[in-house]
Amino acid sequence: MEKIIYGVAYYYEYLPYDRLQEDIKMMKEAGINTVRIAESTWSTYEKSPGIFDFSTVEYVLDEMEKAGIDVIIGTPTYAVPNWLVELDPDVMVYRKGTGRALYGPRQSMDITNRTYLYYAERVIRKLMEVTAHRKHVIGFQIDNETKAYGTSSKNVQNDFRAYLKEKFNHDLSKLNHEFGLDYWSNRIDSWEQLPDVNGTINGSYGAEFEKFQRLLVDRFLQWQADIVAEYTQDDQFITQNFDFEWRGYSYGVQPDVNHFKAAKAITVAGCDIYHPTQDELTGMEIAFGGDSTRNLKKDNYLVLETQAQGFPAWTPFKNQLRLQAYSHLSSGANAVMYWHWHSIHNSAESYWKGLLSHDFRENDTYYESKKIGQELKALSPKLVNLKKSNRVALLVSNEALTGLKWFPIDMNAAFQSTLTYNDVVRHYYTALYQLNIEVDIVSPDHDGWSDYEILVVPALYAAPDSVYEELGRFVSRGGKLLASFKTAITNEHLKISYGGTPKNLEKVFGMTYNQFTIPTGQVLDGEIFEAAVPVRGFMEYLKPDTAKSLATYGYSQTQSASAITLNSYDYGQAVYIACMLDQMDLNHVLEWIFEKEFSYELSPYRFPIVVKKGQNDAGNTITYILNYSNQEKVVASPISGQALLEADLVQEGQILKLEPWGLEIIETTK
Amino acid sequence: MEKIIYGVAYYYEYLPYDRLQEDIKMMKEAGINTVRIAESTWSTYEKSPGIFDFSTVEYVLDEMEKAGIDVIIGTPTYAVPNWLVELDPDVMVYRKGTGRALYGPRQSMDITNRTYLYYAERVIRKLMEVTAHRKHVIGFQIDNETKAYGTSSKNVQNDFRAYLKEKFNHDLSKLNHEFGLDYWSNRIDSWEQLPDVNGTINGSYGAEFEKFQRLLVDRFLQWQADIVAEYTQDDQFITQNFDFEWRGYSYGVQPDVNHFKAAKAITVAGCDIYHPTQDELTGMEIAFGGDSTRNLKKDNYLVLETQAQGFPAWTPFKNQLRLQAYSHLSSGANAVMYWHWHSIHNSAESYWKGLLSHDFRENDTYYESKKIGQELKALSPKLVNLKKSNRVALLVSNEALTGLKWFPIDMNAAFQSTLTYNDVVRHYYTALYQLNIEVDIVSPDHDGWSDYEILVVPALYAAPDSVYEELGRFVSRGGKLLASFKTAITNEHLKISYGGTPKNLEKVFGMTYNQFTIPTGQVLDGEIFEAAVPVRGFMEYLKPDTAKSLATYGYSQTQSASAITLNSYDYGQAVYIACMLDQMDLNHVLEWIFEKEFSYELSPYRFPIVVKKGQNDAGNTITYILNYSNQEKVVASPISGQALLEADLVQEGQILKLEPWGLEIIETTK
Amino acid sequence: MEKIIYGVAYYYEYLPYDRLQEDIKMMKEAGINTVRIAESTWSTYEKSPGIFDFSTVEYVLDEMEKAGIDVIIGTPTYAVPNWLVELDPDVMVYRKGTGRALYGPRQSMDITNRTYLYYAERVIRKLMEVTAHRKHVIGFQIDNETKAYGTSSKNVQNDFRAYLKEKFNHDLSKLNHEFGLDYWSNRIDSWEQLPDVNGTINGSYGAEFEKFQRLLVDRFLQWQADIVAEYTQDDQFITQNFDFEWRGYSYGVQPDVNHFKAAKAITVAGCDIYHPTQDELTGMEIAFGGDSTRNLKKDNYLVLETQAQGFPAWTPFKNQLRLQAYSHLSSGANAVMYWHWHSIHNSAESYWKGLLSHDFRENDTYYESKKIGQELKALSPKLVNLKKSNRVALLVSNEALTGLKWFPIDMNAAFQSTLTYNDVVRHYYTALYQLNIEVDIVSPDHDGWSDYEILVVPALYAAPDSVYEELGRFVSRGGKLLASFKTAITNEHLKISYGGTPKNLEKVFGMTYNQFTIPTGQVLDGEIFEAAVPVRGFMEYLKPDTAKSLATYGYSQTQSASAITLNSYDYGQAVYIACMLDQMDLNHVLEWIFEKEFSYELSPYRFPIVVKKGQNDAGNTITYILNYSNQEKVVASPISGQALLEADLVQEGQILKLEPWGLEIIETTK
Repeated sequence: MEKIIYGVAYYYEYLPYDRLQEDIKMMKEAGINTVRIAESTWSTYEKSPGIFDFSTVEYVLDEMEKAGIDVIIGTPTYAVPNWLVELDPDVMVYRKGTGRALYGPRQSMDITNRTYLYYAERVIRKLMEVTAHRKHVIGFQIDNETKAYGTSSKNVQNDFRAYLKEKFNHDLSKLNHEFGLDYWSNRIDSWEQLPDVNGTINGSYGAEFEKFQRLLVDRFLQWQADIVAEYTQDDQFITQNFDFEWRGYSYGVQPDVNHFKAAKAITVAGCDIYHPTQDELTGMEIAFGGDSTRNLKKDNYLVLETQAQGFPAWTPFKNQLRLQAYSHLSSGANAVMYWHWHSIHNSAESYWKGLLSHDFRENDTYYESKKIGQELKALSPKLVNLKKSNRVALLVSNEALTGLKWFPIDMNAAFQSTLTYNDVVRHYYTALYQLNIEVDIVSPDHDGWSDYEILVVPALYAAPDSVYEELGRFVSRGGKLLASFKTAITNEHLKISYGGTPKNLEKVFGMTYNQFTIPTGQVLDGEIFEAAVPVRGFMEYLKPDTAKSLATYGYSQTQSASAITLNSYDYGQAVYIACMLDQMDLNHVLEWIFEKEFSYELSPYRFPIVVKKGQNDAGNTITYILNYSNQEKVVASPISGQALLEADLVQEGQILKLEPWGLEIIETTK
Repeated sequence: MEKIIYGVAYYYEYLPYDRLQEDIKMMKEAGINTVRIAESTWSTYEKSPGIFDFSTVEYVLDEMEKAGIDVIIGTPTYAVPNWLVELDPDVMVYRKGTGRALYGPRQSMDITNRTYLYYAERVIRKLMEVTAHRKHVIGFQIDNETKAYGTSSKNVQNDFRAYLKEKFNHDLSKLNHEFGLDYWSNRIDSWEQLPDVNGTINGSYGAEFEKFQRLLVDRFLQWQADIVAEYTQDDQFITQNFDFEWRGYSYGVQPDVNHFKAAKAITVAGCDIYHPTQDELTGMEIAFGGDSTRNLKKDNYLVLETQAQGFPAWTPFKNQLRLQAYSHLSSGANAVMYWHWHSIHNSAESYWKGLLSHDFRENDTYYESKKIGQELKALSPKLVNLKKSNRVALLVSNEALTGLKWFPIDMNAAFQSTLTYNDVVRHYYTALYQLNIEVDIVSPDHDGWSDYEILVVPALYAAPDSVYEELGRFVSRGGKLLASFKTAITNEHLKISYGGTPKNLEKVFGMTYNQFTIPTGQVLDGEIFEAAVPVRGFMEYLKPDTAKSLATYGYSQTQSASAITLNSYDYGQAVYIACMLDQMDLNHVLEWIFEKEFSYELSPYRFPIVVKKGQNDAGNTITYILNYSNQEKVVASPISGQALLEADLVQEGQILKLEPWGLEIIETTK
Repeated sequence: MEKIIYGVAYYYEYLPYDRLQEDIKMMKEAGINTVRIAESTWSTYEKSPGIFDFSTVEYVLDEMEKAGIDVIIGTPTYAVPNWLVELDPDVMVYRKGTGRALYGPRQSMDITNRTYLYYAERVIRKLMEVTAHRKHVIGFQIDNETKAYGTSSKNVQNDFRAYLKEKFNHDLSKLNHEFGLDYWSNRIDSWEQLPDVNGTINGSYGAEFEKFQRLLVDRFLQWQADIVAEYTQDDQFITQNFDFEWRGYSYGVQPDVNHFKAAKAITVAGCDIYHPTQDELTGMEIAFGGDSTRNLKKDNYLVLETQAQGFPAWTPFKNQLRLQAYSHLSSGANAVMYWHWHSIHNSAESYWKGLLSHDFRENDTYYESKKIGQELKALSPKLVNLKKSNRVALLVSNEALTGLKWFPIDMNAAFQSTLTYNDVVRHYYTALYQLNIEVDIVSPDHDGWSDYEILVVPALYAAPDSVYEELGRFVSRGGKLLASFKTAITNEHLKISYGGTPKNLEKVFGMTYNQFTIPTGQVLDGEIFEAAVPVRGFMEYLKPDTAKSLATYGYSQTQSASAITLNSYDYGQAVYIACMLDQMDLNHVLEWIFEKEFSYELSPYRFPIVVKKGQNDAGNTITYILNYSNQEKVVASPISGQALLEADLVQEGQILKLEPWGLEIIETTK
């Protein structure tokens, strides 16, 4: 990229009246240099089958070109016209439990339906024809937040059967064995007997279907990318707007898409990141989304959507919009694009507000965007294309997530549970983030995941043996491995290890275990704690062999067992933390292990001060010092160099004053 | 009316044995002078299609006549026989989400179904033939708590399409524009493409359908009233039993019926009111229901149902049954009728107990009804036909309620919210009630709603421009307007104003705003508070223009903005309260504004002492002083006159002792 | 029985590899003398219709025989192969609300479906042919935790109509009257008009259908038992694995099966009991299940399933597995069988762990089972066939349970409630248990239920008049009756008494009442309390006639009424407790009444020390002293005799030291 993209999603078609000129004028004042258009309004472009009208697209393109604003074109396939559903009702997705969806919401079509694909291809081609040749069209977003939407119609299940046949080499006994179908009389004797997956209680069968649904997403995106690529010029990118597990904000690993596999279809990674703000702004979701998306293509990425005002609870405090923008850049983003320019006056997302409110007038958030826009115009050459070279990686996995959905960590006999895979991932990510240990988020489904000095592995419940074996080799050749409870338990078919746990890694960790429980008052004790700390949610009773026990459970009613072990194995080290802790206690444990055992020199800063680094195009070090608190903070500069925001020279150790929700950026010549 | 109706619903058909004579004897002892019969037992009167048997009705009519007890006849159309459903399964309502209802509960038929209407008309006519000529039949209740019950079958949606065509003059582009159908590819190019409303995510489309469902209720009631009117004598009334939003008791504005429109079909307004009791009896629901129902026909109204014993949690304390009865009268009710005489021994509502328990014996609640009956017999001429002339009105709106259901005030990005329209309505009504400011509850759908000195307007989110304009004219000509947050935001199609908010009223309020949030610790400060008070749930950041700021938000992280503004506009005043407060804080604000700004002389009494006034037929002032507490209260009489319960002359300021849950009534000669 | 069965469920078919020899070796080491096999794997035995393969069964049988391990054969009918559903989709159960079930889980077939019954019979017969003649096959379990699974297809409803016709002697007016169908126009005029029971709001109709569903279970079990009995040898038993209301553990009376009626099909009673453990182990569920199951055949019973490790939250503390085993024996169990031997590696119940974890290695729980096995081997002759002769019975009822499901005790007008029948049953059972009053749990549907000295009757809401009359006769002839609120209210059709409550028992209790409420601060006072205690959840206002009031409600807002009454009636006594209390207050009341009024000499021990007694085959008294706490307890021995665990002679009063979760057993020669 040549510059930082500071942009917005722009929906001319949603405007209550034509105010394109006024909008462009206000965009220019705010330094907006890119808009994303067209991805939501198929029925406006093709009001009746085959009758196309891209006049609004061309009008917006023309005016943006005049104004010097770049454009990203989104293909409009994630929301279908009702006439398409009238043509073929099976365009609507068929879902477990609820059956065929009713027309209304976006993202409720069957992405494998032939009718849908036929018409989708046609509208994409027509749109490409009118847009791809335009100079200021810098790239294309294919579809939006694509998923399989739970599709499980008969057709899809037939495809799934074929997929299973191939996977198991037509060997039914292998399927019966791997999935354990003898249980509860689920064994089958012919492929035709494979029961409706929507009713299954077999976690192996169910989870495999969810993996297959993720594969449908990969295929769909590749199919779209191939069509679009027929039209693109060399300098136009193809991206996708990946999103994360949604808990009212971008929480963790996306259950329904394997970002690392799906990203093969695209040329530049993109995502959307939404997060709590006001008193709850921590920067964590911004960093998590960035640390993950940055690694999809091992390059800078685009934040295609993030909040300006968003929901009422997200209306930012003073300085927060600016802190958020730089937070994205500090993770390696090359684009910060608001969803969206203007708030919508009808329908469903009216209170997911844009940079402008419904009255289109200036407002305090818009004022702040002007400041950001001005700064970025000046600093873009220094901030763009920030490169990281992290020594630590956090290993995440869709299959572990799905596995722990079918077999929840702390499920009781009333079939209730509270602890999910992403809770554990966030537990560890939070500790790393608060300790200012920068990480790459990597996946066993992606090359190079073990090319790090330190691997942190939360709850890797399920994986092929090859992954566990690679973890062993990683340690053997000198790597430092830190894994949590519920790691290395099943193979890729959720078949639990019958040869001991951690599967294939007993020697590496120097311990084994075969009992675990939900704590009822248990505490943790040992040399690394000054006083006993409580155990939370789940605990495994470790039996060290060659490993050293760093902490044991102390409670009169349980036989003593180890809770944290450290093992030296060949040239490396392997730490296992067998239980959930309070966040500050986990932070303490990681601090201790990284410093004392892993010889990792920790940053002296702790959250709410967050420090992030990288190299810019000139090879200079860019250091962000971010203050995620409502207090002014006085900190010693971690480095000498040029303060880019205050435009001052700064010496290492020199006092910097950071406003509430403020920041500084320092460039240090190489 | 000539007398206060003290009555019960009476279900001879539900009795386990014939005890009509005993029941009449006990009714007479309790002063019961009216029974409502017949509205629930169609299948008893028409056991097979066309075979009618009204012998139980006639038997009860005969015996009541002998006993001098009047009768209200209910048409039995709200609960259909199963044979009708066997004739035409589409008689059962088709609902969003759950589809065609199963036979069983009442109020689950499709009120537009032709089969239902045909058979309903026939049974109504047959019933009228045997009852309408009877002297002591004083009136008719058509159906019961009528609603559309969520009906959304294909037929109903076809009617809705026709309704939309007419509403938009067959102009599809206007519909697309007004409803914002471009959003998420919902735009349509022919009327036939209108999608199933049950799947829609478009709030404008969805809310318009709910308005249409309310229209179906208006039509249904008019249809029934027209049939019944063919038979009625001049002195027989036609009423309907309106009910309120149900939260385990009568909570607020009924979402599914526009009482003000539906009441056009009837000659006398009626309603049911149920409320918490024991330690939670406040009189608030009684007052709310009365202040609303009284204005449907601008005349006295009938409480056709209220609790005697009701659910276990409602078993009244000593004095409460009596306090409740007079509370109804103090709001202008001419009838207090218990649901119901005897408790039911089978089926579903067995523990919604009547005045008698299942054993039909006397009980403490029945004993208290005897006292009430005796008193009413003596005081009826003085208490009947109480007329109010309130200076203050509270403006409520079905469309605002529906609007805030589709776009909840405090919805977050997990699509959760807690604050509904009726919560805001109750917030303001509670303040007025506790300050002893008597109000009429009025609707923009009803004539004369702005003919008051003071208008209190909670969360009038949606309305046609004409309503906002009339609010402006009201202030201009000298009215005092007090509005809450979320007022004047959209037009009648839930299209949010793109010309600023408060819509059409920026000049009237002398301020505007375009940002709002969910508070996280914000407080309110200003001259009207002694100390800062917390903000709750929702807040708008007001920017005063000509308005004076009465309070601002104080919190270091937000730019200061106004929270309460007061504007003088032409001859009137307009106050805007931009956030939710604790109840006592809102009470304080209203007290301050009414006294200091609106020059309204407040009553010296505060809840739990409630004072209510009106004129009786003789033109004398009747003053109720009601004690809603479990403590004896000593109060100075607000007025001189004749104490009707103690039968003493009382001077203004003279000490009155009110028992726990006690009261006094004073008649002051004009 | 000749010995205590110490066993496991064993699923050879679920094993990931053949390890039968290793398993048998480990079983022998742990003293396991019996396995239950075959009840879950129909599709393994009959992979295609009519092609049978019982080789795994025969292999396991052979090896167990060699090892001297007995076998219980379970018929595999509770989980059907998918090919059976493909043959006839109606094999899957049709349920209220959710319709036809999807294939997947066990226990989701229609137990009345002809196809199912045909194929089930065939597989049962084939299995019997290969197993029944084997010497070491000691018995058969028919099906497993059988219920009707909510079956309510048209066919089942047709059968139900026939059942009703017969029940009401084809007299429709009697049905209309008994069920109160006039209510809400539900009256019918021909049997064909009986509406779909799945939609009904009529509690009498709905509850009768649930009773009919329980009858289907009786019929199904009898049908299976008759088939199996064609093959069994004289010394082989037929049992069923009854279970209890499930709240994440065995909570109370099973709503869906009338154990007392269903048990007629079998020769030996069996059940499964699961319970909280770790800090929440109380022994209560073990005792409740035992006190109930012991009375099904008035003989010793089998605990066919109980937890070894179970869910994570159940991983036992040190000593708990042993305490649990003896707890079962102390209630009269002749078998303690773990579910199950090895943990399962796939599907659904993988974390309902067995005695062995997934790694099949020894673990701390297994170590404890070895100790138990050794002890039982030695003590079996003394502990087997323990006989009780309790003077006190607790009367429970499926019909009361169902009645209070349709008419919840504390339901409010928002249709919410919290208090169920089993809550009241547990409230009373807990008091008895904690006071060390041993009881039989009996049912009005079973002979001899009133042959006790004292009857405790919690919330017997519904019963035929004959039961209430027998309660009266019981008191009359000298019995001591203690009943709670909500006793004796309706007949067997949930028709509430219109002749007063307690129905048919006003004279026996010497009081009546017709009002009740939910307390809001009310307290209980009277001679039996030192200070006022709070009333919880529900209260009736009793009006004593001949009864003495033991406690009254004290609260200024309610007329005083009695809360606990005691009446002498002929030769007996009848106590009525009209409200819910805190557990310790109820314990106090029962302690007072049993000692002072019922002249019952209470044990000096209180929970967590539990003492249980019985006679063994030699006629000697066996006394268990169980310590359900994490503290060492020092207690005086209640009796002289031989301490069986410590192998010491003990004198009455001699100090015994019980470990945390420890116990002692004393045999006293007759």
